[in-house]
Amino acid sequence: MQFTAQTSSNGVLERSFTLGDITGVLFSPESGSVEGAPLLLSGHSGGMHKRAPGLVASAQHVVTSKGYTVAAIDAPGHGDRPRNARDQQWVDALHAARAAGESMDPIITDYNISLAERAVPEWQATIDALQALPEIGAGAPIGYGGTTLGVAIGLMLTIAEPRITAAVFGPVLAYQALIDAAPQLTLPVEFTIAWDDEEIGRERGLELFDAVGSTDKALHIYPGRHQRMATFMADNHARFFEKHLGRIAEPAI
Amino acid sequence: MQFTAQTSSNGVLERSFTLGDITGVLFSPESGSVEGAPLLLSGHSGGMHKRAPGLVASAQHVVTSKGYTVAAIDAPGHGDRPRNARDQQWVDALHAARAAGESMDPIITDYNISLAERAVPEWQATIDALQALPEIGAGAPIGYGGTTLGVAIGLMLTIAEPRITAAVFGPVLAYQALIDAAPQLTLPVEFTIAWDDEEIGRERGLELFDAVGSTDKALHIYPGRHQRMATFMADNHARFFEKHLGRIAEPAI
Repeated sequence: MQFTAQTSSNGVLERSFTLGDITGVLFSPESGSVEGAPLLLSGHSGGMHKRAPGLVASAQHVVTSKGYTVAAIDAPGHGDRPRNARDQQWVDALHAARAAGESMDPIITDYNISLAERAVPEWQATIDALQALPEIGAGAPIGYGGTTLGVAIGLMLTIAEPRITAAVFGPVLAYQALIDAAPQLTLPVEFTIAWDDEEIGRERGLELFDAVGSTDKALHIYPGRHQRMATFMADNHARFFEKHLGRIAEPAI
Repeated sequence: MQFTAQTSSNGVLERSFTLGDITGVLFSPESGSVEGAPLLLSGHSGGMHKRAPGLVASAQHVVTSKGYTVAAIDAPGHGDRPRNARDQQWVDALHAARAAGESMDPIITDYNISLAERAVPEWQATIDALQALPEIGAGAPIGYGGTTLGVAIGLMLTIAEPRITAAVFGPVLAYQALIDAAPQLTLPVEFTIAWDDEEIGRERGLELFDAVGSTDKALHIYPGRHQRMATFMADNHARFFEKHLGRIAEPAI
């Protein structure tokens, strides 16, 4: 893991990093992380990147109010990472379907399944590298939060990765592969549905929640569309993480 | 409004009262209420009463942590109030249906509709009397919280009563009359569904939430049955009331 740039403002240190092909960013308290502070992995939405505005705002909030460290990486072909020819075909097909007023669901499904297959081992390598940093270490509790593509990736990641012990999943197109995998999800988890989202249907979101294996699960439903929900880590979700991952009583800022 | 008895423990003063035929209880800070402190009306479940254990625990929490005043009254024929012959027939029918393994829904529907018709003006008279107390006054923000029967009554009450400005509704058998009335509900409101409750179906709960007219509405879904949800005012619901009704920064205890 190579740190390539850093800035800081309002008490938050923001460090860009690379890990092989992966590009990422780490948010931490400017004055230094407290040993054992929880680590939150943040998965951006489809078409967005590691510095999506809602993601950054949520990360800053969690760092300053709870003393957490937050890591985000670009999904394959997103943000600072070059897009390969196959991914470009999917993106072109998405634009064409939207322009034609046709459903994007089949394309999103195939594209997200492919992205998740590639992103899960990337997140796992990122966790390895983060745990090797002295300021994080192997003892920090790890949570995951994401929306849309960040759920498609995060759901498979949290099933594969026992080091993650709590997750918050925002609105997502709940295709069948996610519903089929959901019974294997057994960590404490919160879901959100945007009730009036035409692109992401309600019913499959309910079906996904129903299929989740966790006994400690909750679903929060709000009116509106999923774009309104970008601050998924704020407020009640931050409290959820605090309950399951703990907090640093006195953030070091 | 006549106060008939009072006790206090752990910083909470608990005063029994009567108002005509109505029997009720008022929970307030032992050291005295702060002027303008929010007033929370608490509606008990079907078959329960104004001192149901979950209701009392929630009331004590809100009084001590937020400085609120909490009022609860017995529904007609519940708690300290005599049950009339017609209500007794409904209760007998409920017991018979349960013993026979038959659906109680049609009986609960008729019984709750009748109870709500009678309880709404009782709650309105109670609000009048509470606002006439110098320690509450006309300026205190008013919220309502309830489960099952407390929702059946509270939903009609909050539609009829503009003095109530925020409501939290726990699990309820969402019969058609409630769904038909829901578009008239326009205050900030939170609902809860117990996802695995065979007696209270999921689908009609979702339909009820969908029909609610409020733009500021949320639905929280948890696994399990509705009996687990008695502490509906705790945690996130207490925060909801704090957002909409305010809080007393320094509870006077």
